[in-house]
Amino acid sequence: MGKAKRGIPSKSEDFNSWYPFIVEAAELVDKRYPIKGMDVWRPYGWKTMKLIDSLTHLEMERTNHEEVNFPLLIPENLLEKENALVSRLKRAREEGVDPDDLRDENDEGGFKKEVYWVKHAGENDLEIPMFLRPTSETAMYTMFPLWIRSHKDLPLKVYQMVNTFRYETKQTRSFIRVREIHFFEAHTAHADEDCATKQIEQDLEIVDNLMHDLCLPIIKAKRPVWDTFPGAFYTIGIDAIMPNGRTLQVASCHHYRDQWAKAFDLTYENLDAKQEYCHQTTYGMSERLMGAIVGMHGDDSGLILPPAIAPFQIVICPMIRKDSDIDVVSKAEELGDKLKSAGLRVKVDSRDIHAGQKYFDWEIKGVPLRLDLGPRDIKAGTAFAARRTGGKEPLPLDNIVDECNRVLIEIADELRSRAKSHTENVVLPLSSLEDIDEGKIYEIPFDGTDAHAETIEKKTGLSFLGDSTSPYSSEMPCFMSGKLTRRRVILAKTY
Amino acid sequence: MGKAKRGIPSKSEDFNSWYPFIVEAAELVDKRYPIKGMDVWRPYGWKTMKLIDSLTHLEMERTNHEEVNFPLLIPENLLEKENALVSRLKRAREEGVDPDDLRDENDEGGFKKEVYWVKHAGENDLEIPMFLRPTSETAMYTMFPLWIRSHKDLPLKVYQMVNTFRYETKQTRSFIRVREIHFFEAHTAHADEDCATKQIEQDLEIVDNLMHDLCLPIIKAKRPVWDTFPGAFYTIGIDAIMPNGRTLQVASCHHYRDQWAKAFDLTYENLDAKQEYCHQTTYGMSERLMGAIVGMHGDDSGLILPPAIAPFQIVICPMIRKDSDIDVVSKAEELGDKLKSAGLRVKVDSRDIHAGQKYFDWEIKGVPLRLDLGPRDIKAGTAFAARRTGGKEPLPLDNIVDECNRVLIEIADELRSRAKSHTENVVLPLSSLEDIDEGKIYEIPFDGTDAHAETIEKKTGLSFLGDSTSPYSSEMPCFMSGKLTRRRVILAKTY
Repeated sequence: MGKAKRGIPSKSEDFNSWYPFIVEAAELVDKRYPIKGMDVWRPYGWKTMKLIDSLTHLEMERTNHEEVNFPLLIPENLLEKENALVSRLKRAREEGVDPDDLRDENDEGGFKKEVYWVKHAGENDLEIPMFLRPTSETAMYTMFPLWIRSHKDLPLKVYQMVNTFRYETKQTRSFIRVREIHFFEAHTAHADEDCATKQIEQDLEIVDNLMHDLCLPIIKAKRPVWDTFPGAFYTIGIDAIMPNGRTLQVASCHHYRDQWAKAFDLTYENLDAKQEYCHQTTYGMSERLMGAIVGMHGDDSGLILPPAIAPFQIVICPMIRKDSDIDVVSKAEELGDKLKSAGLRVKVDSRDIHAGQKYFDWEIKGVPLRLDLGPRDIKAGTAFAARRTGGKEPLPLDNIVDECNRVLIEIADELRSRAKSHTENVVLPLSSLEDIDEGKIYEIPFDGTDAHAETIEKKTGLSFLGDSTSPYSSEMPCFMSGKLTRRRVILAKTY
Repeated sequence: MGKAKRGIPSKSEDFNSWYPFIVEAAELVDKRYPIKGMDVWRPYGWKTMKLIDSLTHLEMERTNHEEVNFPLLIPENLLEKENALVSRLKRAREEGVDPDDLRDENDEGGFKKEVYWVKHAGENDLEIPMFLRPTSETAMYTMFPLWIRSHKDLPLKVYQMVNTFRYETKQTRSFIRVREIHFFEAHTAHADEDCATKQIEQDLEIVDNLMHDLCLPIIKAKRPVWDTFPGAFYTIGIDAIMPNGRTLQVASCHHYRDQWAKAFDLTYENLDAKQEYCHQTTYGMSERLMGAIVGMHGDDSGLILPPAIAPFQIVICPMIRKDSDIDVVSKAEELGDKLKSAGLRVKVDSRDIHAGQKYFDWEIKGVPLRLDLGPRDIKAGTAFAARRTGGKEPLPLDNIVDECNRVLIEIADELRSRAKSHTENVVLPLSSLEDIDEGKIYEIPFDGTDAHAETIEKKTGLSFLGDSTSPYSSEMPCFMSGKLTRRRVILAKTY
């Protein structure tokens, strides 16, 4: 194992030890709560998550989504409609028939095996069992028909940020695979398929904006049919590329066409006074974004947080020297106040401990910019800046706000540039099914059958992420069939 | 029944019909979700609730509380410590002995009868049943011993805003008695009783600040022993005075001394390197604040929202006249942008419908200030302002930001003045146990026994809210014993 910095495992050599260590050492969550996969969010982690959420809120406001909050519990009998829909679509797909020819089926959907059940309250058995939401389609689409009457009520665009629950049986991992999930879900209803498609386009634009701020390298891929969300016409997955080359789905968008609307009788009166089914979409994201940020940006000294979501963008360390009569703590507080008034998130660390300990603490927490302020700096009219991404320089105090803003922008740019070169190093064209390197993601021109895909997955041990939303600029021969195609399919090991 | 304004029940004559009508008509929540007592928060209601929350966040930041987020589920076995504590305190109280002499007891606490149980997940029976948090003492105090080692870790001041769950068997009522409760809870740990007492004082100061912004008339009363929170040394209840004279507990603060710390083994090393138990407090509030705001401020036309929490503080209605070529809609948008840049929350209602319909819609939603802008107003350089609390006046457009801020302050002052006179009308000294008016709250000098209290409660049909935190300025003879006392005890019908 690699050289550990004061007990921190080496990220490059042992990512699987580094990740859980850093998550707790940076005080993001505490995993000692006595339920597996349900961590306690500590103040620093929760603040970071809420800053991510606030970026999402801004995007939702910009795109005219309204925030709602639905109950956690869903009565089992509401699930019947969903189950019928899902099993009908599944059978139609298997049998190659139109789903509308299979209306009255009602066997069990997949969710039942993954949910927490509430069958008792107080000392009573409940007449109708309820479950903790794994996601809110069923809860919401029970209410949408009450809210949508005519074309004037469309589009309906709502979202909520709530915790969802999955009875996860695989090994849990903070943020990445948990049983209580901090979740974002937007649900929309539209007049027709085209309007719904435009919504998906807007969702992907929102994803781009958020990923820009989070400096994350991602792949957007239209999932293959067998990996499409139950009840969806198509699904676009957004996968972060982790340092070990595995991909982590952090978000997804689903185009439902009118499939759910038919199951939940969600209609509207159009301009000709006729009833039409709505077309719907959803867009979900989760705390996996935190997992991607931790995993992607950190290094052997700890986290590196993108400035847009760092609870403290700047930490100021007054350097107390016994041989100087300059009150560095007051000067540091003054500097802190100046930067805070300019809207920056700043911490002044006036603890009476060794500077090395302070550096260690704030490096592990990933504060993007540190300003050291000692008597000599003050005399020289500067603060000594250390970027968490590397590099040191004195900054003039008389222009400190602009200078800090410039440096924070450069730090974010540096993170994005690292993400870009990581992507370029990791995502490669596939030359042969036998020539698969650990930690790589492959792309191929593909226009084959499901059987072709199965062959590829088996031989490579990789999964089809699906069709990249950026196809090849010119036609290429399909990897399996040789047929010319612009479809660029991505293969990866996934979390 | 009173005169209804376009279907709205009269508030003064039929509050019990008015309240549920307004809650839905103003689109705060939708009660049609198929679980009783679990409403769907609609965008307007949720926005209002989040604005209330944001006031709380600011107070928490000012007083150095940090936000955390604990899991929803609590394993049943963690409850054993709490049950032992609660039953021990109860028995000690009944038997008049020191609770510390009753350490090993372990029978059932009261919570078990009020919680939702999760005993199944997927297709499995869980080995250890879990329940949905009714409040988070047990979850948090399981973790606190891991976070508190020495006096340097104190005080620990954390809070969270989460939903809590109670299996409510009484009749539910939006915001006031629900089964999924939007909840705020602050939990603190201190070195000694005195520090914990100071925390309670700070909590009550926070309550005053919030109630000032919400313009609510409240009573703060130290609950009688029999109404003290399980495990608490004492409880201070904060009760809103509703229009019908009933009180609604909207918040409470609990001083736990070291009782919970003993149950959960929560100790710290003091300056002399000795282990001491922490002293703890909690401060809780809930969506009942919304219920109090709806109930207290509304009138026969709908809600009246205090400006501090109104999603729209100002609605601008362009008054389109066919005989004018002034583009009132553009002018209204310009005015809206100007006010928004000044930090005000503004809606421009450019719908092409009759002004009367717009007035009706925004009155029911309780927007504090309406600005009508027609061609004549524009020519005169004014906007015509209508306060939701009554009163109309033209406001000069060239100073509109200051004018609107002034009017919003006056509207809040008007709501506070109404709250004050409501309190004065409703809270009276009690002259005789036989002379009880419906809709009144009584105060008495009281220094009697529990038996005296029971007599009073039986004869009056009122409940002891407890000792007002504002005792009489001079001694008075106790209502029952005649003993001189400054204790001012409050009696009320409660929700």
